[in-house]
Amino acid sequence: MILLDGRKTSNDLKDEIAIAVNSIKKNGGKTPHLAAIIVGSDGASKTYVASKVKACDFVGFHSTLIELDENVSEEKLLQEIEILNNNDAIDGFIVQLPLPKHIDEQKVLMLVNPDKDVDGFHPTNVGRMALDLPCFLPATPFGILELLERYKIETSGKNVVILGRSHIVGRPMSILMSQKRSAGNATVTVCHSRTKNLKEFTLQADIIIAAIGIPEFLKAEMVKEDVVIIDVGITRIKDDTKKRGYRLAGDVDFENVSKKASFITPVPGGVGPMTIAMLLKNTLLASTRKN
Amino acid sequence: MILLDGRKTSNDLKDEIAIAVNSIKKNGGKTPHLAAIIVGSDGASKTYVASKVKACDFVGFHSTLIELDENVSEEKLLQEIEILNNNDAIDGFIVQLPLPKHIDEQKVLMLVNPDKDVDGFHPTNVGRMALDLPCFLPATPFGILELLERYKIETSGKNVVILGRSHIVGRPMSILMSQKRSAGNATVTVCHSRTKNLKEFTLQADIIIAAIGIPEFLKAEMVKEDVVIIDVGITRIKDDTKKRGYRLAGDVDFENVSKKASFITPVPGGVGPMTIAMLLKNTLLASTRKN
Repeated sequence: MILLDGRKTSNDLKDEIAIAVNSIKKNGGKTPHLAAIIVGSDGASKTYVASKVKACDFVGFHSTLIELDENVSEEKLLQEIEILNNNDAIDGFIVQLPLPKHIDEQKVLMLVNPDKDVDGFHPTNVGRMALDLPCFLPATPFGILELLERYKIETSGKNVVILGRSHIVGRPMSILMSQKRSAGNATVTVCHSRTKNLKEFTLQADIIIAAIGIPEFLKAEMVKEDVVIIDVGITRIKDDTKKRGYRLAGDVDFENVSKKASFITPVPGGVGPMTIAMLLKNTLLASTRKN
Repeated sequence: MILLDGRKTSNDLKDEIAIAVNSIKKNGGKTPHLAAIIVGSDGASKTYVASKVKACDFVGFHSTLIELDENVSEEKLLQEIEILNNNDAIDGFIVQLPLPKHIDEQKVLMLVNPDKDVDGFHPTNVGRMALDLPCFLPATPFGILELLERYKIETSGKNVVILGRSHIVGRPMSILMSQKRSAGNATVTVCHSRTKNLKEFTLQADIIIAAIGIPEFLKAEMVKEDVVIIDVGITRIKDDTKKRGYRLAGDVDFENVSKKASFITPVPGGVGPMTIAMLLKNTLLASTRKN
């Protein structure tokens, strides 16, 4: 069994991006610039945005953090987005989710200029992805493709089962892995809450991507020998033996499934660390893909 | 075995649309108006556009046909699209494909205002479909959903196998049928040219949607008893016993597969006739969905 080490891979990626940025600067090019809007003071959101800013520093990007009060009006937020859309210095930007309840999230995401939508959440980017046109891939699916490629896991003609049909993981993964592309050309089945006889599908799978948010859902008896496991789930589980009172669990019963798997992502340290690296990669793309 | 009669169903639909239009007119509303651009004089394209115009007449829509010379410049075509985009009288319009080789099809389709893109080909519509937001569904997938619904074929929790991953049929069908929707909630597998052991997938399928363009590809020994078959293929096969010298064949060996199927679409007369009806339905939606 080989661990798919997301921490190491994301560090490799960040090193590569830093080298690319350095070379752009040396040649007199524009330094990539990522902006992030955060609304309110949710702890997890703040931590996450801070790590994005830190990652920008690491690779040599400029970054701008726009912090808005929790009670900011939707109108004001939309104005801030228009400003970023029209600011040529900014290559890409993200709006940290979730937003407060008085703000229409869909309306906000729709206003982001698709050419600066480095989160890949705008319908135009989603459509371009489905049509196999140049686009920004959402960070988590992009990170999974990158992991599969870097570990040279064959996907062409393989039987891939995806657990979950969410807009940010399950759906894009199912589209991407069945396209003609590297880490693609797989026969892909999407399973979800309405699937009957789930085990019949997972037992046939060469590769399983679990993204349903139910801790330790996928058990050893549901998978075949030598399966490749990508575990996207990450849930806090109460655990009094831990100092912080909880442990993190994925959607896969790691202890037992890892004994049958040929490759498996740990949780934490698997898919998670890849997402920020892919956001950086999208920002680099945005800064170089300009018309 | 029950035939899924696309001719009858599309006629029912057109009758319903005609009633809706009549009621809109009675209440002083705007008559829906579809425009079509056709470039060149390809016989099949002309026939197809003519039947769209005829269908508009039948249901009481206004229609406008814009015929451009085969040698029209890309610039001139793009101008015509801008005129339609900006003409409030036009609710929706289509650009009949294929276009001559000197014109960039993608560039043309990208310019169509997504709010008037009743063919559902613009990336923004494709993305909105994938995100389960209000959109225009492409006509063939929309027609298949309509057939499944009208014949009350249960799809929730069913094992659906889709043969083909094209942008206009396979891909959208796979997305739509696994969403939470009527004619959805299925466990969907997308098979294609790289799929290994295809028969293992098709033999497990409750519903098979064949859209690969290989005549009579799906044989009786590849399906289980009581399977539901949707045949999207339509290919001309040389046949000297016919007056016109050919016959039309679907992707399914109808003669033998129909003996095992519970429901099956004939070719012709199955999926085909549904497409124009769905284009009309999209145009009606466009005229009533205005902001």
